Amino acid sequence: NSTVATDGKVTGSTSFHKTTESKRIISYNHSDNGKPNIVILGTGWGSISLLKNIDSSKYNIIIISPRNYFLFTPLLPSCPVGTVDEKSIMEPVVNFASKKKGDVTYYEAEATDIDPSNNSITFKSVNNATSLSGELKIKPNTSDLASVHYDYLVVGVGATPNTFGIPGVEEHGFFLKEIPDSKKIRNKFVECVEKANLLPKGDPERKKLLTIVVVGGGPTGVETAGELSDFIEQDLKHIMPNIVDELQILLLEAMPNVLNMFETKLTKYAAKVLSETAIDLRTSTAVTKVEDNFLIAKTKKGESVKEENIPYGMLIWATGNKQRPIVQSLAKKIPDQSDVRRGLVVNENLLVKGSKNIFAIGDCSNAKLAPTAQVAHQEAEYLAKVFSKIASKPSFTEQLSKSDVSRVPAVFESVGIKPFNYIHLGALAYLGSEKAIANVTYGKRNLYSGGGLFTFFVWRVLYVSMILSVRSRFKVCADWLKIAFFGRDCFKEL
Amino acid sequence: NSTVATDGKVTGSTSFHKTTESKRIISYNHSDNGKPNIVILGTGWGSISLLKNIDSSKYNIIIISPRNYFLFTPLLPSCPVGTVDEKSIMEPVVNFASKKKGDVTYYEAEATDIDPSNNSITFKSVNNATSLSGELKIKPNTSDLASVHYDYLVVGVGATPNTFGIPGVEEHGFFLKEIPDSKKIRNKFVECVEKANLLPKGDPERKKLLTIVVVGGGPTGVETAGELSDFIEQDLKHIMPNIVDELQILLLEAMPNVLNMFETKLTKYAAKVLSETAIDLRTSTAVTKVEDNFLIAKTKKGESVKEENIPYGMLIWATGNKQRPIVQSLAKKIPDQSDVRRGLVVNENLLVKGSKNIFAIGDCSNAKLAPTAQVAHQEAEYLAKVFSKIASKPSFTEQLSKSDVSRVPAVFESVGIKPFNYIHLGALAYLGSEKAIANVTYGKRNLYSGGGLFTFFVWRVLYVSMILSVRSRFKVCADWLKIAFFGRDCFKEL
Ligand SMILES: Cc1cc2nc3c(=O)[nH]c(=O)nc-3n(C[C@H](O)[C@H](O)[C@H](O)COP(=O)(O)OP(=O)(O)OC[C@H]3O[C@@H](n4cnc5c(N)ncnc54)[C@H](O)[C@@H]3O)c2cc1C
Ligand SMILES: Cc1cc2nc3c(=O)[nH]c(=O)nc-3n(C[C@H](O)[C@H](O)[C@H](O)COP(=O)(O)OP(=O)(O)OC[C@H]3O[C@@H](n4cnc5c(N)ncnc54)[C@H](O)[C@@H]3O)c2cc1C
Repeated sequence: NSTVATDGKVTGSTSFHKTTESKRIISYNHSDNGKPNIVILGTGWGSISLLKNIDSSKYNIIIISPRNYFLFTPLLPSCPVGTVDEKSIMEPVVNFASKKKGDVTYYEAEATDIDPSNNSITFKSVNNATSLSGELKIKPNTSDLASVHYDYLVVGVGATPNTFGIPGVEEHGFFLKEIPDSKKIRNKFVECVEKANLLPKGDPERKKLLTIVVVGGGPTGVETAGELSDFIEQDLKHIMPNIVDELQILLLEAMPNVLNMFETKLTKYAAKVLSETAIDLRTSTAVTKVEDNFLIAKTKKGESVKEENIPYGMLIWATGNKQRPIVQSLAKKIPDQSDVRRGLVVNENLLVKGSKNIFAIGDCSNAKLAPTAQVAHQEAEYLAKVFSKIASKPSFTEQLSKSDVSRVPAVFESVGIKPFNYIHLGALAYLGSEKAIANVTYGKRNLYSGGGLFTFFVWRVLYVSMILSVRSRFKVCADWLKIAFFGRDCFKEL
Repeated sequence: NSTVATDGKVTGSTSFHKTTESKRIISYNHSDNGKPNIVILGTGWGSISLLKNIDSSKYNIIIISPRNYFLFTPLLPSCPVGTVDEKSIMEPVVNFASKKKGDVTYYEAEATDIDPSNNSITFKSVNNATSLSGELKIKPNTSDLASVHYDYLVVGVGATPNTFGIPGVEEHGFFLKEIPDSKKIRNKFVECVEKANLLPKGDPERKKLLTIVVVGGGPTGVETAGELSDFIEQDLKHIMPNIVDELQILLLEAMPNVLNMFETKLTKYAAKVLSETAIDLRTSTAVTKVEDNFLIAKTKKGESVKEENIPYGMLIWATGNKQRPIVQSLAKKIPDQSDVRRGLVVNENLLVKGSKNIFAIGDCSNAKLAPTAQVAHQEAEYLAKVFSKIASKPSFTEQLSKSDVSRVPAVFESVGIKPFNYIHLGALAYLGSEKAIANVTYGKRNLYSGGGLFTFFVWRVLYVSMILSVRSRFKVCADWLKIAFFGRDCFKEL
C-alpha cells in the first residue's frame, strides 16, 4: 500500500486484489479521514444538481462518469442546426467540483458493477481519467478494473434510448441524446441536402434525400422538427432557394396527440403551428420497420390501419427510455427490484427499495414520476438536504449499517428526514417559427398558460434560468444574439 | 445539351466528351451570356479578398475550392487551446458570394489540372458540391471529372506545409494549417496531459508526455507556443495544479533568431518574454529526424554541433511552404516556369509569366514577396482593379487572346493597368502572457513599434480589423470576452 500524495484533496491509499477471473482490480480507498464516502454515478441532471447542492465538507465525494461534462439537454435539439453551439450546453465537471469544499474526486470512467453486499463500485480502467485532485500513484492500465468503497451510493446514470425492438432503428436511425449525436445529425443533414442539390428535380432519389423523419411527439421530437424547420426557412432558403420548397419533415407520433403533457387548447395550438410549416405531423402513426432507404409506418384511422412505405434521407429517433445494463444488473441482486423497466423502485426517501444506502435519482429511478430533468433536479436538491441531515448526526452511518433493511425508513425519520415531495413546475415546448407553448405551475396552481411569440420569449428566459452555470448561460445568450444578426452556422464535420 | 435552370444566377449548358482514358468529363459551360468567365481557384486569403473586391456584374465568376469557407489564418494558433473557437475564424463562401451581383457559382471540389492551351480547368467530381445558384441538371458521380472553360484564371490555391524531407515529420507530427489540424492538436494535447496525470512523478514516460515541441520560430510557431503557455498558466493550473509545473514547451528555430522580420530590439524583447514562461526557446536548432517517441535535434554553437535526443509527447510543425501538385504540373506546361519552388513566377501585373490569361496570387505565386496574408490580400485588391480596367474595354479579352505572349504587357498598359505595388504594413506577433510585439508601417514609414501589454491590445484591435466578415469579428470578440470571465474551453473530440 502506498499513500497518495496529499495536497489537501485526495488522501488515502490503494490496494490490489486478484479476482477469480485473474483480472486485477485496483481499489481506491478514500476513507482515511473519517468522513463517509458518497459515490455518485453520472454527471447528468441528477448527479450534477446533487454535486452543486451538497455540503461536501462533511463527506468524501467520488464522482464516476464516462462523460466529463454536464449536458443541458433541453437545448440539445437546438444544436444540430446551429441555433446553439454544442459547447454552449456543455459544462465541465471540474467547473462544478472545483467550487466544493472538502475532498472531491472525479473518475472519468464507466461504472460496470454495483456490489451492495460489499458496498463497492467497480468501474472500467481509468486510462482516460482526469483525477481532479492529487495524483494516482498506481498506473491503471487497460486490463485493470478499479473499485471504490462507498458508504452511500447515488445512482444517477440516466437511461438509454429505447427502440422498442423495432428492427433497423439502431442501424439506420440517429438518436438525439448526447453531443456526438448532434454532430452526426448535422453531418447527415448537410450530406442529404448537398447530394439532393446535385440531382435533377423530379428524381425520386432527390425526394427521398429531402425527406427527414422525426419519430416522437414529445417536446424533444417537436423541438427537433421545429429547429430543422427554422433552419430551412431562415438560413437554407438564402443559400439554396431551389431545395427549400422540396424539403419535408415528417413528425411521427404513435399516440393520437403530440405534447400530451399540456392542456388540450395548447396541444391544438401546437398542431396548428406545425401545420403551417414544412413539418408534416402524423399522429396515431407508428414505425414498424426501418431499412436503409425506406421505413414502414402504420397509421390508425378509427378501426382501419394504413400501412405506408416512406423513403427517407435521415431518421431521427427522439423517444423512449431503456434502463442501462448496470441498473438492470443491480436490480437482479435485490429481491425487491423485480420489474426494473421504469427504473429502480425507490421509497419516499429516494432510497432503492431493498437497499440501505443506495439512492437512485433521475431517469434510472422509478419514483412514479415522469422521466424529466425537472424531476431529477428536485430529487437531487432533496437528496442534498438528506445528506445534510445525515451529517448532523455523526453516528447515523454506523447505525444505518447495523439496521435491518425493513427498519431503515424509521432510522431516516429519526433524524428528521421528511419524504420527498415533488412540486410540478410545468412544461415548455418550442414549436419552431418563433412560437412556443408553456404551462407554468406551482404544484396545482396554474401561473401561466399560453402559446405564441411572447411565450417563445418566456421559453427562452426560463430555459436560461434553468442552466446550471453562468458560463453556459453566457454562451447560450451569445449564440442567440449571434444568430439574430448573422444566422446559423451549419458546418459539416465541426 | 440541356439548359440549366435560370433563376438569374447560372445560365448555360452542359456537355459531355470522352477523354482518351475513357473517363467522362462533364463540361460546365457558363459562357452563354457574353460575359467573360473568371475562374478562381481557392477560398483563401487571395481568392476571397478578390471575390470581395471584384465587380462581378461584368463577369461570370466561378469559384472552385474543396474548402467551402474562408479561414482567418492569423488566429488559427489561438484555436487548439480554445482562446478562439474554430467556427469563429471560418466564414462560409456563400456568405461572401451571396452579396455579389451577377453570376457567381461555387464548386466545392478540388481542381486537378489546368490546361492553358484550351483555357480549361479540370476538377474532381462535385459529389459534395454546394452549387450556390440554380441546379446542375446532370448528376456528376464519383467516376466523373468536371471541367469549366475560363477566359481568365486566378490561381489562389496557397501552398502545403513543407517538411524539407525530414523523416518522420509527416507521420508523427501535427501541422497547423487548417481547421482539422487545430482539433487534432487539441485532442493530442489533452490525451498527453490525461495520460501523464495517471503516471507517478518521476516516471520518464510522464516527462515525455509533458514535453511539447513546436518547430518554427516565425509568428505562427511563437504564437502557437504562447497560446499553449497561456492555457497552461491560466486554465490548466486550476484543474491540474500538479501537472502544470512539469509541462514543457520546446520552441525550436533553425535560424539564430526568432521573429526575424522584426527589428532587433523587438526580437530581443520577444526572446526575453518567452524565457519567462514554460517555453524553452532554442535557436540555431534544427530537427533532423522524428520517431514515434523521440526526435533528434542538432544545435549549432559557433563551430560545434550538439546533437540531442528529445523524447516528446506532441510535435507541432509550424514552418515551411511547398507548392501544390496542381501548381507544379502547371509550371511544367509553361517554359518560363522552370523553378516553381517559390511559386509561379508572375510579372508586374501578377500574370503568370509565359501565360496570357492566368494570374497567380498568394502563397502559390512568386512576386518576390513574403508568403503572407498581407501580400495575398493586396495582390487580390490589385487584381480586382485590373479586372475593372479590363471590363472598361469590352474588346480587351478578344484582343488579348489574339496577341502573342510577349506583347501581353503592352496590351495591359494600353487600358491603363499599372504595375502591382506592394506597400508593407508591418508585422505583428503574440508572445503569450498577454504581451505582443508590433511594427506598424506604411511602406518605409514607421508608424508604431513596440512590445508589451499595450501592444497586445493593438495586436487584438488590428487582427479584428483584418477579419473579412462582420460575423467572424463578432464571434472572435465574443470568444475573447467569454475567456476573460470564464476561461477557455478545451474539450476533446469537439
Ligand atoms: C434531447 C433531450 C431534451 C430534453 N429536454 C428536456 C426538457 O426540456 N425538460 C426536461 O425536464 N427534461 C428534458 N429531457 C429529459 C432529461 O434530460 C432527463 O430526464 C434527465 O437528463 C435525467 O437526468 P439523469 O441525471 O437521470 O440522467 P442524465 O442527465 O442522462 O445523466 C446520466 C449521466 O450518467 C452517465 N452515465 C451513463 N452510464 C454510466 C455508467 N455506467 N457509469 C457512470 N456514469 C454513467 C452519463 O454519462 C451522464 O452523465 C430531455 C432529454 C433529451 C435527451
Ligand atoms: C497558422 C497560420 C497563421 C498565419 N498567420 C499569418 C499572419 O498573422 N499574417 C500573415 O500575413 N500571414 C499569416 N499566415 C500566412 C497566410 O495564411 C498565407 O500567406 C495566406 O493564407 C496565403 O493566401 P493564399 O490565398 O495564397 O492561400 P490560402 O489562404 O492558404 O488559401 C488556399 C485556398 O486554396 C484552396 N485549395 C487548395 N488546393 C486546391 C485545389 N487543388 N483546387 C482548388 N482550391 C484549392 C484551399 O482550400 C484554400 O481555400 C499564417 C498562416 C498560417 C498557416
